[in-house]
Amino acid sequence: MTTGIDEVGPDQTRDEDAYALDRRTVAAILYAVDVDDREKLVELMEPLHPADIADLLEQINPYDRTRLIRLYDKEFDGDILSELDEAVREEVISVLRPDVLAEAVREMESDDVVDLLEDLEEPQQETILDALEDSERHAAEQALSYPENSAGRLMQREVVMSPEHWTVGQAIDFMRANDDLPDQFYHVVLVDPRLKPIAQVTLGKLMATRREKHLRDIADEEFYTIPVDQDEEDVAYAFNQYHLISAPVVDEDGRLVGVITIDDAMAVLDEEHEEDILRLAGVGEESSISDSVAATSRRRLPWLTVNLCTAICASLVISQFEAAIDQLVALAILMPIVASMGGNAGTQSLTVAVRALATRDLTGANVARVIRRELLVGLLNGLCFAIVLGTVGMMWFDSPMLGVVIGTALVVNMIIAGFVGTVVPVVLDRLGADPALASGTFVTTTTDVMGFFIFLGLASVVLL
Amino acid sequence: MTTGIDEVGPDQTRDEDAYALDRRTVAAILYAVDVDDREKLVELMEPLHPADIADLLEQINPYDRTRLIRLYDKEFDGDILSELDEAVREEVISVLRPDVLAEAVREMESDDVVDLLEDLEEPQQETILDALEDSERHAAEQALSYPENSAGRLMQREVVMSPEHWTVGQAIDFMRANDDLPDQFYHVVLVDPRLKPIAQVTLGKLMATRREKHLRDIADEEFYTIPVDQDEEDVAYAFNQYHLISAPVVDEDGRLVGVITIDDAMAVLDEEHEEDILRLAGVGEESSISDSVAATSRRRLPWLTVNLCTAICASLVISQFEAAIDQLVALAILMPIVASMGGNAGTQSLTVAVRALATRDLTGANVARVIRRELLVGLLNGLCFAIVLGTVGMMWFDSPMLGVVIGTALVVNMIIAGFVGTVVPVVLDRLGADPALASGTFVTTTTDVMGFFIFLGLASVVLL
Repeated sequence: MTTGIDEVGPDQTRDEDAYALDRRTVAAILYAVDVDDREKLVELMEPLHPADIADLLEQINPYDRTRLIRLYDKEFDGDILSELDEAVREEVISVLRPDVLAEAVREMESDDVVDLLEDLEEPQQETILDALEDSERHAAEQALSYPENSAGRLMQREVVMSPEHWTVGQAIDFMRANDDLPDQFYHVVLVDPRLKPIAQVTLGKLMATRREKHLRDIADEEFYTIPVDQDEEDVAYAFNQYHLISAPVVDEDGRLVGVITIDDAMAVLDEEHEEDILRLAGVGEESSISDSVAATSRRRLPWLTVNLCTAICASLVISQFEAAIDQLVALAILMPIVASMGGNAGTQSLTVAVRALATRDLTGANVARVIRRELLVGLLNGLCFAIVLGTVGMMWFDSPMLGVVIGTALVVNMIIAGFVGTVVPVVLDRLGADPALASGTFVTTTTDVMGFFIFLGLASVVLL
Repeated sequence: MTTGIDEVGPDQTRDEDAYALDRRTVAAILYAVDVDDREKLVELMEPLHPADIADLLEQINPYDRTRLIRLYDKEFDGDILSELDEAVREEVISVLRPDVLAEAVREMESDDVVDLLEDLEEPQQETILDALEDSERHAAEQALSYPENSAGRLMQREVVMSPEHWTVGQAIDFMRANDDLPDQFYHVVLVDPRLKPIAQVTLGKLMATRREKHLRDIADEEFYTIPVDQDEEDVAYAFNQYHLISAPVVDEDGRLVGVITIDDAMAVLDEEHEEDILRLAGVGEESSISDSVAATSRRRLPWLTVNLCTAICASLVISQFEAAIDQLVALAILMPIVASMGGNAGTQSLTVAVRALATRDLTGANVARVIRRELLVGLLNGLCFAIVLGTVGMMWFDSPMLGVVIGTALVVNMIIAGFVGTVVPVVLDRLGADPALASGTFVTTTTDVMGFFIFLGLASVVLL
């Protein structure tokens, strides 16, 4: 048994990129596919975790992917489907033989089936639902009736619960007699006669307590219930903030309808981070490294279009000072520096604010202080660089006044950067929008336009 | 009891910002501090989770913070310390009365003490170590001997283990007789006589099985051990990838030395994301919304300095074309558009690559395909915008050739953007550096410099 178990573990001797699929395994698997050696393929894939198989499928090209799936055939596991990226998942489902797909889906846990179903188009959804047994189909359809990204979609319906008056012994006997316990559970939820959760007992505590003790006497001190329509982002926040392991989910009447466990919350946290980081960069949602060229291009177009419009605005500002540039080409040479420094400073402020909003560290209680801090940081850093850049400008073009102009423009633009970098995400958040979504463009547009305007305007007044 | 438990839960009726500290509570607490009403303060703070109290302390100003801590005094809980940001934590430790601090630290779990200690300066570290009992002090010092950010620092030393030949009944009896079980544990680790972990049994399974069954017959199929010197980033990845709840940690000889639980892994995942997002924006590490103006300013200076240098480089490129701009001011007006579009496209590619590297989705197996995809996306999107921008340039300045020049420059710069946006983070990663760290500057410098060079160079050749 020892060896059997050890084989399953990943190769832990490599320090670099522990757990990443190594090139040699991938090559061996692709070779087995090339020579159509099913036995070898199954042998190579057997020690891999479904999550690693999913990664492998995402990383190889569509042609190899199809051949691999066809050769692997009946061995294909439902858990691989849950782990796949949306784009690849749809393709894999269409490649799988119907009976293999049905078998794979029947093996999955209820919350994983829901997770799979919600991303699929209508016809594929039907195929999967048809593969399920009636009771499971009903359960999946009910889960799908909850709003998208809500606790109801995230929870599993299998809950281990006990009447509030039971003893440790009664609870253990009940569990021993029950064949249908969930694979993983961490708490016994105590409920009143109307199924309202009242407290929960951790399994460790249950295990360590004598049989005659009452469950309610060893219940956790802290206890959070999650409303079934709560946004999954808030659920993930609560798990992270309060170090929860599992929490009961209740409907509008406060009755127990399911349970959410920390691994689901961790997956949501990971997705939310991904969304934030991609949105800040103006990359559309659910982008993945395995998307096609056309899909990637289409997804990136919207924000590039917005950027083109704002860049043209900035050019319009510059064109107002055509005469000034005509007289003094140095202005054209130096103006990108003012805009670029403002854009960078604004992005710094913006990112800190977006992150602090996500972790609920930026609230009504401290927003005024944070804005004041950003203004001061803008002033301070602006002054530092104004001295450097002013000197450079002065010496390069042999004009002391040019140095003063660029230095002043820089200070003003960096203060503006600190201000908009903080205020824009806060306002978007107050309006109920995602602060990461459009902030970047707003902020850099402002710093570009203001940078050009202040520098060229000041130069026109002072120098010409 | 029911009400007592309900009071602890957060206010779940508000949909917006569930779990965020609300303004009214903060105001009431600050008022209690103002009027020096200790009883009221304790009453208001009592229902708050330590993590929420930590957030509160971070959000109020240093003056209020000191007064609040002094008034709260003996009620101050060790868990609040673990939840605080580093910057605020040091300040709070220096404000706490020595006996309150000692008491707070003694209440903490071993892994939390280590987490606290590792961020502190020498003298504060000593204060805390002195407050611990000898055995705990020894344990903390040993944990600190493991490399920073390693599994050894993250793990807790309290493990529930059992000889491999025990039955369910023996394990339960052992746990019932043991007063010293950890607060939270999810597995019983089976070890051989030399303390090498062999398998683990989840508590749910243990609970559901008859007393006479052997533990090894109900062990989990999958089982991962974590080397004590593994980087915490890899640990977090393994938990997320393989949906682990807890995993035993082993030393070089394969002997069990501790256990890591998913809540710690989740915290690491959260920190890693924070680092990535802040680094991409050129904000230094461990930046927090509660840092002082001076600290924030200092932390942001390095990347702004780098940006200044690269912006000056771009200006030097422009200055090579002084004569061209002098002849045709339209060039100065249009050139920022080419640079800005390239910068945006490059940031998109870069962010996708950094994220894919973090999730191990971009590997040797698919890097060539991903680069090819980025080149094609750059070409495709470049062509789209070249048509738009070419038309704009043509009509605005009434010069068809100017339209052709700016369109061509845009296509070339966007292809370059896709290429550097992917290659730079991949190369940094291969070199063992953090791909998020310097990539942004590299990429936007390249797109700025190349954008100006190609556009102005082409214009000089074609138009003048």
